[in-house]
Amino acid sequence: MTTLYGYFRSSAAYRVRIALNIKGLAYDQAPVNLVKGEQRAEVYLARNPQGLVPMLTIDDGTQLLQSLAICEYLEERYPEPPLLPADPSDRARVRALAQLVACEIHPLNNLRVLKYLVNELQVDEDTKLTWYRHWVAEGFTALETMLSREAGSGDFCHGDAPTLADVCLVPQVFNAERFEFDLSACPRIRRITANCRAIEAFQRAAPGEQPDAN
Amino acid sequence: MTTLYGYFRSSAAYRVRIALNIKGLAYDQAPVNLVKGEQRAEVYLARNPQGLVPMLTIDDGTQLLQSLAICEYLEERYPEPPLLPADPSDRARVRALAQLVACEIHPLNNLRVLKYLVNELQVDEDTKLTWYRHWVAEGFTALETMLSREAGSGDFCHGDAPTLADVCLVPQVFNAERFEFDLSACPRIRRITANCRAIEAFQRAAPGEQPDAN
Repeated sequence: MTTLYGYFRSSAAYRVRIALNIKGLAYDQAPVNLVKGEQRAEVYLARNPQGLVPMLTIDDGTQLLQSLAICEYLEERYPEPPLLPADPSDRARVRALAQLVACEIHPLNNLRVLKYLVNELQVDEDTKLTWYRHWVAEGFTALETMLSREAGSGDFCHGDAPTLADVCLVPQVFNAERFEFDLSACPRIRRITANCRAIEAFQRAAPGEQPDAN
Repeated sequence: MTTLYGYFRSSAAYRVRIALNIKGLAYDQAPVNLVKGEQRAEVYLARNPQGLVPMLTIDDGTQLLQSLAICEYLEERYPEPPLLPADPSDRARVRALAQLVACEIHPLNNLRVLKYLVNELQVDEDTKLTWYRHWVAEGFTALETMLSREAGSGDFCHGDAPTLADVCLVPQVFNAERFEFDLSACPRIRRITANCRAIEAFQRAAPGEQPDAN
């Protein structure tokens, strides 16, 4: 059996849920409550020294870490429907859009970082939200520009079917909405997100649909 | 001609230099001085709305962004010598190690983030360094554990030849050394880094060897 260790509101786990759903793969879920700190529990760290979600385990003993690495694995093992286009330049564009979210926005805004700001740097709620919105604004402004002016864009980030870029975008938009980030300057991002949200694979992956949602 | 827009001390540009050298590809360099803010200049933003380095341009008009996406492109276009093993699970392991650096450590510690801490949050030098070392310690502790106990490790992060994981590790170690991070608890990371530094492709990619080094 394939088991996803995740958390309903984790953007990174959300990405993997979308990818698994697009590929039509069945999986169990093993919730790891990040707010309660279960990712730092000895039993979890023994399996995953990164102390992060997601982790995907497969019954052949394979244990996979890091959301984008997991998505690439799924793409290689289960090529259809594809999460990456065929042409190397197009694949590079999709990966760059995905990494703009996964390497430039999300790492600055996840729970452990916001916790460090509050607990260690003792910033107030306003300063924390300003930090959050600053990095989303930086990233989304660049993303909106790329999506608007590059020929590769379509109904989705690349062309007219979802790719790894959309797999990363939708959880980041969900996250931004939760922090009341104003998306009015990002019409293309909003349109693509709406197109994704019309697809069942994205709908079933949404945080509110998960067994640990509260 | 292939041109790398980078900065001698940028970890992300450093990764691409290593990958290009391992693949034996010739390239020009177009330095973008991050300290002077040249990445935010209109002429650069017009080409790269992310306002980041590296960017790799190829004379067929292809323009590539995001260091890991660039490395994957190079791997697909120029498979030899490989930066990723053949087996999907092994590839996933290498990508996870690479992303542990590229998604969990580096994004929190690059120049623009340290600048935000100092200029916007007005933290003092000590607090900035504590932030820096905190995220490196988190990431390197996990990485050291994985490298020490997983069967895939060898003289390099995976097996006995450099992969994408080493391409990411060596610039992060350089960066950590620059910020006087204590690596004594990371013997495996130090050994692998030493093995990489014995290889010409890594040597030629080092920050001090670049035209814009100062």
